[in-house]
Amino acid sequence: MSMNSFGHLFRVTTWGESHGPALGATVDGCPPGVTIDEAMIQQWLDKRKPGQNKFTTQRREPDQVKILSGVFEGQTTGTPVQLMIENTDQRSKDYGDIIDKFRPGHADITYWQKYGIRDYRGGGRSSARETASRVAAGGLAREAIKQIAPNVQITGYMTQIGRHKIDRGNFDWSQIEQNPFWTPDAQAAEDWANYLDELRKSGNSVGAIVEVVARGVPAGIGAPVYAKLDTDLAAAMMSINAVKGVEIGEGMAAAELTGEANADEIFMGQNGPQYSSNHAGGILGGISTGQDVVVRFAVKPTSSILTTRKTITKSGEETEIITKGRHDPCVGIRAVPVGEAMMACVILDHLLLHRGQIGENRGRIG
Amino acid sequence: MSMNSFGHLFRVTTWGESHGPALGATVDGCPPGVTIDEAMIQQWLDKRKPGQNKFTTQRREPDQVKILSGVFEGQTTGTPVQLMIENTDQRSKDYGDIIDKFRPGHADITYWQKYGIRDYRGGGRSSARETASRVAAGGLAREAIKQIAPNVQITGYMTQIGRHKIDRGNFDWSQIEQNPFWTPDAQAAEDWANYLDELRKSGNSVGAIVEVVARGVPAGIGAPVYAKLDTDLAAAMMSINAVKGVEIGEGMAAAELTGEANADEIFMGQNGPQYSSNHAGGILGGISTGQDVVVRFAVKPTSSILTTRKTITKSGEETEIITKGRHDPCVGIRAVPVGEAMMACVILDHLLLHRGQIGENRGRIG
Amino acid sequence: MSMNSFGHLFRVTTWGESHGPALGATVDGCPPGVTIDEAMIQQWLDKRKPGQNKFTTQRREPDQVKILSGVFEGQTTGTPVQLMIENTDQRSKDYGDIIDKFRPGHADITYWQKYGIRDYRGGGRSSARETASRVAAGGLAREAIKQIAPNVQITGYMTQIGRHKIDRGNFDWSQIEQNPFWTPDAQAAEDWANYLDELRKSGNSVGAIVEVVARGVPAGIGAPVYAKLDTDLAAAMMSINAVKGVEIGEGMAAAELTGEANADEIFMGQNGPQYSSNHAGGILGGISTGQDVVVRFAVKPTSSILTTRKTITKSGEETEIITKGRHDPCVGIRAVPVGEAMMACVILDHLLLHRGQIGENRGRIG
Amino acid sequence: MSMNSFGHLFRVTTWGESHGPALGATVDGCPPGVTIDEAMIQQWLDKRKPGQNKFTTQRREPDQVKILSGVFEGQTTGTPVQLMIENTDQRSKDYGDIIDKFRPGHADITYWQKYGIRDYRGGGRSSARETASRVAAGGLAREAIKQIAPNVQITGYMTQIGRHKIDRGNFDWSQIEQNPFWTPDAQAAEDWANYLDELRKSGNSVGAIVEVVARGVPAGIGAPVYAKLDTDLAAAMMSINAVKGVEIGEGMAAAELTGEANADEIFMGQNGPQYSSNHAGGILGGISTGQDVVVRFAVKPTSSILTTRKTITKSGEETEIITKGRHDPCVGIRAVPVGEAMMACVILDHLLLHRGQIGENRGRIG
Repeated sequence: MSMNSFGHLFRVTTWGESHGPALGATVDGCPPGVTIDEAMIQQWLDKRKPGQNKFTTQRREPDQVKILSGVFEGQTTGTPVQLMIENTDQRSKDYGDIIDKFRPGHADITYWQKYGIRDYRGGGRSSARETASRVAAGGLAREAIKQIAPNVQITGYMTQIGRHKIDRGNFDWSQIEQNPFWTPDAQAAEDWANYLDELRKSGNSVGAIVEVVARGVPAGIGAPVYAKLDTDLAAAMMSINAVKGVEIGEGMAAAELTGEANADEIFMGQNGPQYSSNHAGGILGGISTGQDVVVRFAVKPTSSILTTRKTITKSGEETEIITKGRHDPCVGIRAVPVGEAMMACVILDHLLLHRGQIGENRGRIG
Repeated sequence: MSMNSFGHLFRVTTWGESHGPALGATVDGCPPGVTIDEAMIQQWLDKRKPGQNKFTTQRREPDQVKILSGVFEGQTTGTPVQLMIENTDQRSKDYGDIIDKFRPGHADITYWQKYGIRDYRGGGRSSARETASRVAAGGLAREAIKQIAPNVQITGYMTQIGRHKIDRGNFDWSQIEQNPFWTPDAQAAEDWANYLDELRKSGNSVGAIVEVVARGVPAGIGAPVYAKLDTDLAAAMMSINAVKGVEIGEGMAAAELTGEANADEIFMGQNGPQYSSNHAGGILGGISTGQDVVVRFAVKPTSSILTTRKTITKSGEETEIITKGRHDPCVGIRAVPVGEAMMACVILDHLLLHRGQIGENRGRIG
Repeated sequence: MSMNSFGHLFRVTTWGESHGPALGATVDGCPPGVTIDEAMIQQWLDKRKPGQNKFTTQRREPDQVKILSGVFEGQTTGTPVQLMIENTDQRSKDYGDIIDKFRPGHADITYWQKYGIRDYRGGGRSSARETASRVAAGGLAREAIKQIAPNVQITGYMTQIGRHKIDRGNFDWSQIEQNPFWTPDAQAAEDWANYLDELRKSGNSVGAIVEVVARGVPAGIGAPVYAKLDTDLAAAMMSINAVKGVEIGEGMAAAELTGEANADEIFMGQNGPQYSSNHAGGILGGISTGQDVVVRFAVKPTSSILTTRKTITKSGEETEIITKGRHDPCVGIRAVPVGEAMMACVILDHLLLHRGQIGENRGRIG
Repeated sequence: MSMNSFGHLFRVTTWGESHGPALGATVDGCPPGVTIDEAMIQQWLDKRKPGQNKFTTQRREPDQVKILSGVFEGQTTGTPVQLMIENTDQRSKDYGDIIDKFRPGHADITYWQKYGIRDYRGGGRSSARETASRVAAGGLAREAIKQIAPNVQITGYMTQIGRHKIDRGNFDWSQIEQNPFWTPDAQAAEDWANYLDELRKSGNSVGAIVEVVARGVPAGIGAPVYAKLDTDLAAAMMSINAVKGVEIGEGMAAAELTGEANADEIFMGQNGPQYSSNHAGGILGGISTGQDVVVRFAVKPTSSILTTRKTITKSGEETEIITKGRHDPCVGIRAVPVGEAMMACVILDHLLLHRGQIGENRGRIG
């Protein structure tokens, strides 16, 4: 029972701090015979990598992944895969008063209250940098899914920055790769660029909402009651740095619906059941329906801003702080590939669980 | 690794179907020496019990809990506590076409697609009745918490039914026990009564939002990265029947905030750090701050409604269905004690985890 | 993470004390569609049941199992199976000075030192009665194995009582069911009967060795490094009440062999690899070879004997104790069905794990 | 649930193959504030290191450990500690017919049958080299134990090589560090040196027995029923490469004892209960008594010998094999520090578990 692990059969343990020698993911339970190499994982890390455009932090790290174990002659062996990313941007710098002052909205203070140890160099385990390990593990999960359920496609995108939401009428899958926000609404991308530009100049930051969809997930994966597919997705997304809310399908809006409006009616399609709508987000009773699995999560604004804030020191004195240095006006942008990675890990895990308990899918309809 | 268990050290496994002989919770890892008897647990089951007013289902079950193990002479022994609730309302009845037809919005179809076994009697494990087991376990957790952190107070209440939200200006803790909705807003209670009355007559149902607050939680419990306090709360709440969204603190609304607005400033109080606000919901980096821990979740409307809906049969034929019998116009009401129970289990679990890894709290401020 | 659970995917949690209302096993992860009823489980409990002959304790309990959940219309549903055995022999009796005195060789004293709670009524969780729950779970596991690997046959038998070992030259599988010791050596059965008769009269007790063999286990189940098939078997057997040693294949005697003598040479048979011998006990590197899986364990003599022994009281005073009442001259006899049950649970668990990670067996030879 | 992990709260996941770039241990759940550096761990790796004398394999690896995470300014932070050992001896060599032939007694064949992937370079995860990771984790565990139970002392030693046992009359703790076998019997060390010299020359190998003792373990650690201290020790030792049997206290010999002989009588000492003997090996009902915790395990002879053996190829053809290259006449010698490491990990884990569930020890005697 590791507090730094997730997954049941596809088990990922992440380790490492933002300013130590390296960080990474120890992945156990991967099926053998999955074709994989470092480049196949690197593509996803490159997507998450900071410093790619002016809307993300300017820390420039190559984030180069190395496979240290579990792969032989280009295939997984079925034993633990160690994915390591060395930290190259460990420049010695003047941490100044960060060493003693807690940053409001940061985990500095709670880590101190829990452990009595203060790694002031950059957030330690609470740094967004930890998510690089997840993205690496997710890259492996994607390849393993192909072996079992080749039709699965996992795509994340932004639906909201600050108060600015996408227009669902503009939704276009092909736009997602065309803009720095991975948003399916080309108009929103343009508006957001202007909005964030101003925000960055003012030294402020803002929150965002990311949606991740898994298409082609076979019906029947998931499990009652505490390993429901939605339970595991909620945990996976909420565990991401700065996430404060998670929704499946209608999410919080389900509160406003009547039973009549909410029930997705069922029809018989050529390849099994089809539904009139997808309020459920592809999950009923914790088990996939075969529809798109739809998860959404909110990312809070980064607390590293250029405004002076009141705080206290380790010795309990009241003071003020201003966080100089690299800023991410909207840390939610970089959460897109992270959300995709978590979705991939959860889907693979439940494919394996299903195969373990049940083998071939048993309940045929029609 | 049980799919029907939750918790790390305080480990709860629920079992049983809505129409079998009994259901219950096997609770392992409870500290020894906790004073407990059946009446202390029964009070919480009585709160959740259906049939108490016209706004909840009229199924009348005594839901009487029996302690079968782990308690000797009124105290827990430290070994597994078996909490059993016998099903008394197992009247043989005519299930009619439910046997072959899937109810839209129900887990009928996904259970069939997963297991190839159909327990048509009432939802099996996906029934809301499963939550009685959680409430029983939560009753034990509340008593155990008193042994370790006696100031903890856990309270759930409704903040929204359909589109009707409470007015936070009317918030009054003392109102919560005074109305059938456990809502802190007396005016809302009155309005909701009228609204639900009409909804019930029309045979429709509606969703709701429940908020659960834990006051008095010591700073420092929780753990990075996949056993964060918020991660475990998200999983706990999302695992409840019919929940579609979970929020911590600002929740989804965090997307709309700027970093300047969102950062809770820190001051020094008499008993440690104090904050200017609680956007964080009492959790930073997965670890408690000492502020109120605030969780919210949305419950979808029950799909058992008196409107005819399109569906299919086990053999794949298209047909229609109308669910007769007992209806819950707002199943979210009964989710209040369930949410409280899950909060109690998670808080206790993390108190034990903290004590295990670290012993006495280490990081003193001031 | 329950301290009272074992298994990875086929997860068994036992609960209950020897003198409470009931005890049982909560079994999660069983495949759906396994044909099962109470009688199929009862047969194994009857085998373990005390009071069947003069060589086991005279406590007479019907040990009647009830299935409370997870089975519908004679088949497992894939959800938790609750197996309950009510304690009927809870006669109020005079515990006398047992209440305050610790019995040497019993867990009385360590339970007290750990929990500070003393259930003096009969050993609580440390009672051999807990093993009834395992036998019930094992009965279910046997039926589930048939669904996946129908050729598996699990048989336990005694190979030693006190200093009296069986003669391997007399080994006859058909004898095992013919004598009260489940031993394959008819001559040993006769000798042991006389030996135990005298021992019982003298109020003494003796240890024993039990061997459990699983035949027909497919090659390839198990997993490095801490879920090796032999690791899990060692844990499963060592967790049985009173067991002090566990061996796989040659076991402790492997220390005396040379590499030349120990290596099982490999040949090609009609259905795959065959071996010149089975020093390995059917397991190499934690993974099954397809040969018989052979486990052996030693059971210490029961400490409830009619000889006065020195001990102390709860308040630390030195005193003496003599255990009156029901005695088991060789508690090892009743461990035979328990060992079989644990073997069944472990084999099933690893069949499921293998199917989960790998699906169909991948490595074909020839 | 990782198949390559062990421990409940102090959770160790080992990863890496004998001939990949690196191997190591990801350690989660270590208490914060433990003083540690690479040298403190290195000392134990040096003890296990091959090539130190003529009785162990001549593979010369520096086995240099690097701490990649979880330690800041010389102290553990409470987050995962990554311990990496790079493989420097990866010389490209001619594997010859090993690529296709299975070595009798090796896990070659079962890994192939399980995974369908063959890492012929040196045993992969089944190599004895995996145990270096355990030794590193054990080094950390030893330091963490000091924080909680400073009187604990863990010592391993050999008691038997082939048929040659130590004379318990010669037992001298101070001898253990004085000979290449870590044996407390100086005379045995002399005899064994001659015996192994001949064995090595003849290209043969032999098994051994290792005993590990933990002194100063407080009474009350461990837990019923499947996380008993002895259960976890049995699993820990059986998971070590080439181990075929595990004993606690009297072990298999308990079968030969009468209840009268086996029961350790209890007296009252100055610091709590004392016992007339320690047949129990320091554990009753899965919980420590405060006496020495005594574990013993048998290591089979290595199968890499210079005698021709019959085997088959991957394609199922019968053939012969002879293993050239580096040989370990008694691989059991290097198992001594490995057994110590596993003991340290298990003891620490149970100290944390006890503190988690119970806090301060509750049951006082006297």
